Amino acid sequence: MARPEKHVFVCTQSRPPGHPRGSCAEKAGGDIMGEFGQQFEQRGLWGRFLLTSAGCMGGCDSGLVVLIYPEGVMYGNVSKEDVSAIIDEHLLGDKQVERLKVAPEVW
Amino acid sequence: MARPEKHVFVCTQSRPPGHPRGSCAEKAGGDIMGEFGQQFEQRGLWGRFLLTSAGCMGGCDSGLVVLIYPEGVMYGNVSKEDVSAIIDEHLLGDKQVERLKVAPEVW
Repeated sequence: MARPEKHVFVCTQSRPPGHPRGSCAEKAGGDIMGEFGQQFEQRGLWGRFLLTSAGCMGGCDSGLVVLIYPEGVMYGNVSKEDVSAIIDEHLLGDKQVERLKVAPEVW
Repeated sequence: MARPEKHVFVCTQSRPPGHPRGSCAEKAGGDIMGEFGQQFEQRGLWGRFLLTSAGCMGGCDSGLVVLIYPEGVMYGNVSKEDVSAIIDEHLLGDKQVERLKVAPEVW
């Protein structure tokens, strides 16, 4: 494939149960990845955009994190319900979803 | 941590043995990740730069791939010996390693 317009990384990092930093896998990282994948498929977004699961990207205290390049915008506490907003507003509308952005000291 | 100057993604995708697309895990993805990690540690690069393992980013016919944002530059057929060059030239020198870049039709 050619270089995508935007590249979505979803944290799916796993850590042993009870680890002090927790992990995005516990926070349903896989579900968010699946939700993005399903919407990419249904809405014909593959090719124009790219979706990749990723290990730790920081932001471990910010719930499930999603990072989008080339802008380098990190979203935190992302739920399945937020996936449509990220696609509609950020990917297709080129407008960052302010309410989901992590604090500036986190990223 | 604060937002890094550059973010290095190393493909560590695994696939079942015999899969037609192969996988970066077979191509020693873990070793490259380990080599970056060791050099980040020894050279005090954490904080300024970020290193993350990643699932498939495309370029599956280009050997082990490494993708660096925000530039969005993909390197292919990366060996352990190439890691120093990527750090010295690209991360620290801000100069892309032309000999390692994948073909334009790949990325």
